[in-house]
Amino acid sequence: MSTSPRTVAVIMAGGSGTRFWPLSRKTRPKQLLALLTERSLLVETIARVTPAAVAASDVLIVTGKALAGPIAALATGAEIVVEPVARNTAPCIALAAARVAARDPKAVMAVLPADQTLEDVAAFRRVFAVASALAAEGRIATVGIRPDHPETGYGYIRRGPQIQDRAGVFEVAAFVEKPDAVTAARYLEAGDYDWNAGMFFMRADVLLAAVDRHLPGLSKGIALYRAALGTPGEAEALDRCFELAEAISIDYGIMERETPNIVVLPADIGWSDVGSWRTLLEFRDGDEPNFVRGDVLVRDTEGCVVVSSGPQVSVIGLRGLAVVATPDAVMVAPLERSQDVGQIPKALEALGRKELL
Amino acid sequence: MSTSPRTVAVIMAGGSGTRFWPLSRKTRPKQLLALLTERSLLVETIARVTPAAVAASDVLIVTGKALAGPIAALATGAEIVVEPVARNTAPCIALAAARVAARDPKAVMAVLPADQTLEDVAAFRRVFAVASALAAEGRIATVGIRPDHPETGYGYIRRGPQIQDRAGVFEVAAFVEKPDAVTAARYLEAGDYDWNAGMFFMRADVLLAAVDRHLPGLSKGIALYRAALGTPGEAEALDRCFELAEAISIDYGIMERETPNIVVLPADIGWSDVGSWRTLLEFRDGDEPNFVRGDVLVRDTEGCVVVSSGPQVSVIGLRGLAVVATPDAVMVAPLERSQDVGQIPKALEALGRKELL
Repeated sequence: MSTSPRTVAVIMAGGSGTRFWPLSRKTRPKQLLALLTERSLLVETIARVTPAAVAASDVLIVTGKALAGPIAALATGAEIVVEPVARNTAPCIALAAARVAARDPKAVMAVLPADQTLEDVAAFRRVFAVASALAAEGRIATVGIRPDHPETGYGYIRRGPQIQDRAGVFEVAAFVEKPDAVTAARYLEAGDYDWNAGMFFMRADVLLAAVDRHLPGLSKGIALYRAALGTPGEAEALDRCFELAEAISIDYGIMERETPNIVVLPADIGWSDVGSWRTLLEFRDGDEPNFVRGDVLVRDTEGCVVVSSGPQVSVIGLRGLAVVATPDAVMVAPLERSQDVGQIPKALEALGRKELL
Repeated sequence: MSTSPRTVAVIMAGGSGTRFWPLSRKTRPKQLLALLTERSLLVETIARVTPAAVAASDVLIVTGKALAGPIAALATGAEIVVEPVARNTAPCIALAAARVAARDPKAVMAVLPADQTLEDVAAFRRVFAVASALAAEGRIATVGIRPDHPETGYGYIRRGPQIQDRAGVFEVAAFVEKPDAVTAARYLEAGDYDWNAGMFFMRADVLLAAVDRHLPGLSKGIALYRAALGTPGEAEALDRCFELAEAISIDYGIMERETPNIVVLPADIGWSDVGSWRTLLEFRDGDEPNFVRGDVLVRDTEGCVVVSSGPQVSVIGLRGLAVVATPDAVMVAPLERSQDVGQIPKALEALGRKELL
């Protein structure tokens, strides 16, 4: 087996979802929450790859202004790059590529979302090594998660034929948008669809060339930014870059258009994007009837998520509910309404309750 | 109509129920909570009778040691008598009678629980005046609440024949214990059963004479106490009195045994004992779908009680639940389990969580 190429972990930590309100807030979104372990999802993401696969000094975190401070406090040693505005993932990853290329255009970037979890770290590291090696050869590699249920909340990747002499590595036949329930069931049945986990492996120069091919605004902006790197005009160039950039995801903006050149590594690694309060039920301890964290007392209760970071919480006789308490806000909703939890901070914002956002 | 006799309002405020946890605590039981208005049930109880029916200086509140301070702060101007230990209502009322009799043995005592509510104050005051007048004549009068549903949580009073020339005043045929559901339905059907609201009107000397007839321990204790009133031995005599006293309710200890001499005034005054979180649903504003108090946001929710004295509380998609938050404790349970809420502080006590009791 060849030695691993030099790989930089590019961690996308700009997310600002509201589905974990009231635990998540504007300056403490999902990736900064310790939902499943004692450590935040971001710190777990870093810990999965360093130092085993990536040197601690080769971690680059891209995020927004509001999170730069909290993230710097959590991820000591990592380089933090601040986007002037959020413009979806294509500009975010191109910005990272520009930084990485300034030092080593042939370095591999392992692009990882900061707000996911996975159970089988050893299996993930094996996939990570193979994907990095493929990327070092000039390919773009992505990870496909073997589905175990017909999820409608994820995009899918349809596998094409296996790459010659590469067991477990397939051409990507297509990137597919989030399906409806019937279609998701069909994908599961078909067997050649994997979940798109949003992880991508490619050299910095390969990504930048793809940007030049497909996203002219971003291409122009990145050129300005690269020219200004290390000069007094760098910050201004970055602002200009993001003004010029197409606000588009890496999936739509690059991957779909590069599909014939992309490979997918299907993996069974206990992955989850921890999408909502309901997801946490899957992380119950052993055969516990509920997912419980914090100062919580539970009686005659099943299938509930009960979490407190503040007041003592006691529940009796509940079924299928999320009960979440913080020192200044409490939320109760059926888990089947987990997708609607974001309505609450929206309503509170309309009421001028900024202190709760 | 004759002028009203001098009446002392004797307010029994020693209760220590746990059904309103976490809002209620050991030093802030139900009668001290502002559940329905801006004022506590105790303060509302006083306000209903003073100064319209009773002089502000003729309010005597009997309670326990833990509540004497909080009650003194709420009920300025009232005389507060502290029971050495809780021994049910018969010793409590006899203690009040001894204090009242020391100034005026013929004064009427209007014995009122501190933790009830009623909507029609004008109607209540009319009943109060008639009951006080009957008591001044030497009778014991009680108020029967016209039932509007087959409640199993209250004792009942069966009406006998009307008192001669006294419209709306009846002999008591029997005091009846809390019935099961079938029996309660039969009482409602029969039409001559009223709820026992625990209000009693009688002269101090009449009550003390009844104690002498029926409760020999309490009788002896009260005699010691009356002899010691105003002397340095008063506190010690009170302790001794409560050691000697039978721990029994006024209903069982006196009223059932005096039944032929007691009259009942059936009243339709919108009364409730505010027995549990579920009861609060009856006090919804207008045709509101929920009972809501405090900093609360409610969406797609019906038949719920959502109360906060602390954190902001947001709920989505709930049916039939109680959600109650305070700065240090949160409780969620189906309203149909309201009777079981007291299990929570019991469990917390077993866990040594005294700060939450």
